Amino acid sequence: MCGIVGYIGTKEPQDIIINGLKKLEYRGYDSAGIAVVNHGKIELRKHVGAISNLEKLIGEERLGGHVGIGHTRWATHGAPSDLNSHPHMDMDGTIAVVHNGTVENYVELKAELEKEGVVFRTETDTEVATMLISKYYHRNHDLKKALDQAISEMRGTYAIAVVAKDQPDQFVAYRKNAPLIVGLGNNCNFVASDFSALLAYTKDVYLLENGDTVVLTKDAVNIYDEEDRLIERPMMHVDWDVSAAEKGGYDHFMLKEIYEQPTAIRETLSRNLDDNGRVHLQETVQLTKEDFEKINKIVIVACGTAYHAGLVGRYVIEKLARIPVEVDIASEFRYRDPFVDEHTLFIAISQSGETADTLEAMREAKRKGARVLSVVNVVGSTVARESDDVFYTQAGPEIAVASTKAYTTQLVCMYLLALFFADLNVAISAEEYDNFVQDLEAISGKLEDVLKMAPEIEALANRLYDRDQVFYIGRGVDSSVAYEGSLKLKEISYINSFAIAAGELKHGTIALMEPRTIVWALATQERLFDKMVSNIQEVKARNAHIISLAQEGNSEIEAHSDEVFYIPRTKDELTPLLSVVPLQLYAYYVAKAKGCEIDKPRNLAKSVTVE
Amino acid sequence: MCGIVGYIGTKEPQDIIINGLKKLEYRGYDSAGIAVVNHGKIELRKHVGAISNLEKLIGEERLGGHVGIGHTRWATHGAPSDLNSHPHMDMDGTIAVVHNGTVENYVELKAELEKEGVVFRTETDTEVATMLISKYYHRNHDLKKALDQAISEMRGTYAIAVVAKDQPDQFVAYRKNAPLIVGLGNNCNFVASDFSALLAYTKDVYLLENGDTVVLTKDAVNIYDEEDRLIERPMMHVDWDVSAAEKGGYDHFMLKEIYEQPTAIRETLSRNLDDNGRVHLQETVQLTKEDFEKINKIVIVACGTAYHAGLVGRYVIEKLARIPVEVDIASEFRYRDPFVDEHTLFIAISQSGETADTLEAMREAKRKGARVLSVVNVVGSTVARESDDVFYTQAGPEIAVASTKAYTTQLVCMYLLALFFADLNVAISAEEYDNFVQDLEAISGKLEDVLKMAPEIEALANRLYDRDQVFYIGRGVDSSVAYEGSLKLKEISYINSFAIAAGELKHGTIALMEPRTIVWALATQERLFDKMVSNIQEVKARNAHIISLAQEGNSEIEAHSDEVFYIPRTKDELTPLLSVVPLQLYAYYVAKAKGCEIDKPRNLAKSVTVE
Repeated sequence: MCGIVGYIGTKEPQDIIINGLKKLEYRGYDSAGIAVVNHGKIELRKHVGAISNLEKLIGEERLGGHVGIGHTRWATHGAPSDLNSHPHMDMDGTIAVVHNGTVENYVELKAELEKEGVVFRTETDTEVATMLISKYYHRNHDLKKALDQAISEMRGTYAIAVVAKDQPDQFVAYRKNAPLIVGLGNNCNFVASDFSALLAYTKDVYLLENGDTVVLTKDAVNIYDEEDRLIERPMMHVDWDVSAAEKGGYDHFMLKEIYEQPTAIRETLSRNLDDNGRVHLQETVQLTKEDFEKINKIVIVACGTAYHAGLVGRYVIEKLARIPVEVDIASEFRYRDPFVDEHTLFIAISQSGETADTLEAMREAKRKGARVLSVVNVVGSTVARESDDVFYTQAGPEIAVASTKAYTTQLVCMYLLALFFADLNVAISAEEYDNFVQDLEAISGKLEDVLKMAPEIEALANRLYDRDQVFYIGRGVDSSVAYEGSLKLKEISYINSFAIAAGELKHGTIALMEPRTIVWALATQERLFDKMVSNIQEVKARNAHIISLAQEGNSEIEAHSDEVFYIPRTKDELTPLLSVVPLQLYAYYVAKAKGCEIDKPRNLAKSVTVE
Repeated sequence: MCGIVGYIGTKEPQDIIINGLKKLEYRGYDSAGIAVVNHGKIELRKHVGAISNLEKLIGEERLGGHVGIGHTRWATHGAPSDLNSHPHMDMDGTIAVVHNGTVENYVELKAELEKEGVVFRTETDTEVATMLISKYYHRNHDLKKALDQAISEMRGTYAIAVVAKDQPDQFVAYRKNAPLIVGLGNNCNFVASDFSALLAYTKDVYLLENGDTVVLTKDAVNIYDEEDRLIERPMMHVDWDVSAAEKGGYDHFMLKEIYEQPTAIRETLSRNLDDNGRVHLQETVQLTKEDFEKINKIVIVACGTAYHAGLVGRYVIEKLARIPVEVDIASEFRYRDPFVDEHTLFIAISQSGETADTLEAMREAKRKGARVLSVVNVVGSTVARESDDVFYTQAGPEIAVASTKAYTTQLVCMYLLALFFADLNVAISAEEYDNFVQDLEAISGKLEDVLKMAPEIEALANRLYDRDQVFYIGRGVDSSVAYEGSLKLKEISYINSFAIAAGELKHGTIALMEPRTIVWALATQERLFDKMVSNIQEVKARNAHIISLAQEGNSEIEAHSDEVFYIPRTKDELTPLLSVVPLQLYAYYVAKAKGCEIDKPRNLAKSVTVE
């Protein structure tokens, strides 16, 4: 889980690589480094921490040259440190390597290389890859061959790029189960983990396939497939707007993205509803009524925030379409020998489309014959490319590590799928259908009203930010939103928060309640309101500080709460789109009051491309 | 969720009631109280906190009389306080009432009574019940009629008992969806929430049915059913050993019960395996091969620790018997309109057999036509009585609020059911079957070896008890054990602990890792060992303090851990029976080092008889 950039051309690589890495910082920012080939020597600079630290280290120095590679890291082997940072060099400084992924058999390979006399300086798997490539390069002085030979001995996942001190006119790269694209410029060419790193230089890219090795010169890009055949990959023109990736006046990307939710939801709806208010899914979803008739259950698999969207998905698909739905955490799904066959519709949810756990779970489901529909934000990502049907969330680029608008647009996809399936399954009446669509279309306006609570929530956060016990409770679909609210707080404020189904609290966890404990009580479900009030009273009886969230008009809750926020009235099924917003804002303002680095929390990366 | 005791006879009620309440303290200990009828007056004493506080309040005083009722409370409405304690009296001190359960419509009833001039002193629903009974008693001076009339206007769950100042020769009680039994003595009779309160006085009891009203005199017990017909209920002789409910030399019931696990497991196995090592379930499980052939899925529902046993159950039943299994939290199950029909086998797990959430979920499943099999520890409990098949866990009385031997015997039931179903479903070979049974029979001996680690774990706990961030991670069935380990710590040490599937950690929660963080890493699954080591390295890279748990021989893990405990080698499926024990001991010794009240943690009750 790292970002890599490579450049070859007529300019000096230094600024291009560093600017590219900054766009990839969302992939990790434990450390960063750059290697440039200049006059038969590799100039290597690397530093622990964000890319700004690397810039400080380099200062006014010019590294020169015309070919170089760079890396921003999220630690998987070995602690973040200068030494463990990429690029890695071999013993005599002949080659430098950047790598995103893991080498699974590095322990064995390392032992063999040590027997041959190689001395290692770090604990990383990437250094092992480097030494292996170096071994073959010293034999044949052919960068591509050396890389291919090393790869043939390694087991793992990689996007990898290599430069050599005596190769000023070329560099090589390889992709397997980690993202890597090639960018085409004028008199220059690039590799990068994704195209945000290249938007300032080119919009024309090749998406590499697994097993592709690429040799880049300033004038040419040669791609070789797994059988070492020189091949062509289709060129893609990227039409994302660079300005969409800027903060646009907000203090943080996260806040900007919270405020973008009404627009993002409208966009997702407009692409998937026709003029008559009927669900008409985007053309990348090809599933027909005939396909659907073969399906007897749905399995939703995802990680983190996307998993929480899946929980809401289960609730609403079961409710509207009356099909059994299972939801599982991707990293667990694969290892429990799940019941999946050709009658299963497998739904993978991933913002980045590069989440390794989700990808592996999806491949397992495919092997078992399931049809795979993915809900993805990043176009052309691996999950999207390997799915039978792709439902794009239309959230636009999400830069903050803590996901907000990706989550709410994932929810909208769940509602649209539920309606789509309900129609195919003839499970709801025309009137219920129309009614649901109308309420869904009205949500963006209501969400704008919820955003107006921000100053009140900011004031609350400023008052309570130093409390170190924050619980989130709810019943039914409220419990799924509770999980998401708690995760947001954990991710950016480092508060050890806990979410739990309100009815389950008394079976143990209620022991933690103290007068300084904060409890966010989600009571937006009309039909569970009385049961929820009972649960609130249990907690109140232990003197916890209760912040309740209810639909407008349910003012009885004030008698049992220290604070109450009201969301506009809507269907019980649709409240997550509104109720999550105060929780997002609370997490944001608590983190801000605590002085945390909101957009790039410690230890986390935007997309998790290792298992 | 409270305990009640009532006595009428030739002796003074005071000591009998207080001793009985002490045995019921596992049901709650927020406050306690007693009311005795003496010379035309009700002597009422009550006090917040444990029953010892009530004893101190009474001191040397003798309350006299021959009829009385008592109560130990777990707060559901209103904070624990002297005023909110039971028994409750009406305005002029004519009657006194104890109540376990809730009156759902108390707000409306209270408003009506207030209009009629009744003045309330407390926030409790029970005071409303008291005033309503009082209203009718003042009209007709017939305790039974007054109770019946009041009940007819109330909606909720109750075990309730009433005395009147001018009725020295009788008292009345009523049961609906809360446990209440009648004990028969010589020249005396009793009511109580369960028979542990009465073991010192009688072993002959009637189990009341829902809707039963009972009128007790010293010589007679008259039971009336819902239609007000005088009826007979079968008498039951309880052969539990009183000494089983004593601490037997251990500092706490919890530690005693941890050490009782090998014996309890042997007992559960011996009752359900025949001489040929075949599963032959106890006679209360009637499910035949024919019944089983109608089943196409299993739904397991439980709360708290029993839910964690259910997670292991899902894993092992799916694996061995190849039947799809869902697990759900009881309080959530009922409200998501679950897919349950006559082809569903519904398994309810509850130590006490009185868990209200589980009971309601089970009733919902029954209404939908499912066959209900319950895994229960307390014989004759409501869950057991309402099930089609009952699998008794044979753990013996569990007194400590934090469940240990009930959990491990629940696990054994899961393994036995998995084997039983695997056999019916012809899903495993005879050899695999025999092999599994052999390994299961060897577990108790291995668990005895694990218990020998106690001094090391105590030393570790004494070193680390003040750390306030403790995580538990694992993959596959290890993650279920991680949840249970974390719950134990939360329940008795009040540390805000968190358990998570190890692969899911990096999707957000890893942000919380700091050098003072403790991570219990469960790595007992051989086939997931490498993946787990990768997850441990991610956490280690953030400098957390790692305590690993692995099968003997996997010493590679030492390189990545600060401490390692080894469990004896066994099948991957069976490790939960061993791996949970160090976690139980760790929770126990941390709580002890922190000076917590281990057997009766704050805010908790042994069985949760409200939703």
